[in-house]
Amino acid sequence: MPEGVREKPLAQKTLYTGRILNLRVDDVELPGGKRTIREVVEHSPAVGILAVREDGKALLVRQYRYAVGEDMLEIPAGIVEKDEPFDETARRELQEEVGYFPERLMRICSVYNSPGFCNELMELYYATDLRPSKLKEDYDEFISVVPIDRGDVPALISGGKIRDAKTLAALSWWVAFADNN
Amino acid sequence: MPEGVREKPLAQKTLYTGRILNLRVDDVELPGGKRTIREVVEHSPAVGILAVREDGKALLVRQYRYAVGEDMLEIPAGIVEKDEPFDETARRELQEEVGYFPERLMRICSVYNSPGFCNELMELYYATDLRPSKLKEDYDEFISVVPIDRGDVPALISGGKIRDAKTLAALSWWVAFADNN
Repeated sequence: MPEGVREKPLAQKTLYTGRILNLRVDDVELPGGKRTIREVVEHSPAVGILAVREDGKALLVRQYRYAVGEDMLEIPAGIVEKDEPFDETARRELQEEVGYFPERLMRICSVYNSPGFCNELMELYYATDLRPSKLKEDYDEFISVVPIDRGDVPALISGGKIRDAKTLAALSWWVAFADNN
Repeated sequence: MPEGVREKPLAQKTLYTGRILNLRVDDVELPGGKRTIREVVEHSPAVGILAVREDGKALLVRQYRYAVGEDMLEIPAGIVEKDEPFDETARRELQEEVGYFPERLMRICSVYNSPGFCNELMELYYATDLRPSKLKEDYDEFISVVPIDRGDVPALISGGKIRDAKTLAALSWWVAFADNN
């Protein structure tokens, strides 16, 4: 693709404005002049946190995910609230979901989870120096904490226990790049 | 969360039926009896392919993503067509997007990209023994191929060049787990 090739919006229509997402369908002009539609799910940014305790275990959470109909094993994560700095969201969610405050919080990178149709940006953090500190969970969250060892990661992946993209990314990053905490 | 805790659907309403996704809003009963809504984006399954050539380079693609308004560097990926086996989708997309047929295709795992609101499942593959073979791209895709070395991955991540979750997962997996192809 030559640099600068873009798709030009011709018309935007919001079809649904909801609680955690909106749906927009746009008419766009492709490079070369053809027209098509683009379906766009608008979603607030979010954070995901790879939190590693002093005993070397990463703290995952298990919860039922209605959209996929499965119990999922995931890194703690959550939606950034209005005017909330991303690192504050990370500290809040970690206290809500696993009951720890991170004295050290390192930004890994930020990624789109589904750039083909959704603008949700997720900032990934690596949290260490954890001290116990519990905040109340959201009323609609039912979560259990699952500590795992770094040595368990290959078997968790190959055994199909990791079913969440951000968690696969965070755990692979942990094995590949993180210092042995 | 105790095993078996689920959310019970009370009513389902499809608000939009589209080209690559549908939108459903369900009334559900939470464990304990409270009620809430769940917004669900229905999306066909997809594949992503970490393809590594004999010279040791992984073949990424650069393309404009309308939903996020950015040029993205990603592993080749695409939606599974009706009745198409996942591994066939992987072989087809690789030929369309980067112009290679993989003589070896290994399944890494399958993950949900956004399990909080979307049922899109993505099957990740590791493709090697590549031989040139080009299929025509989709009419609305404008793609350039970007080969990268395994040694480039840390700087690509820390430099903010990887903005796609499945690509972060695949490249971290490559560094952490794949044999040196």
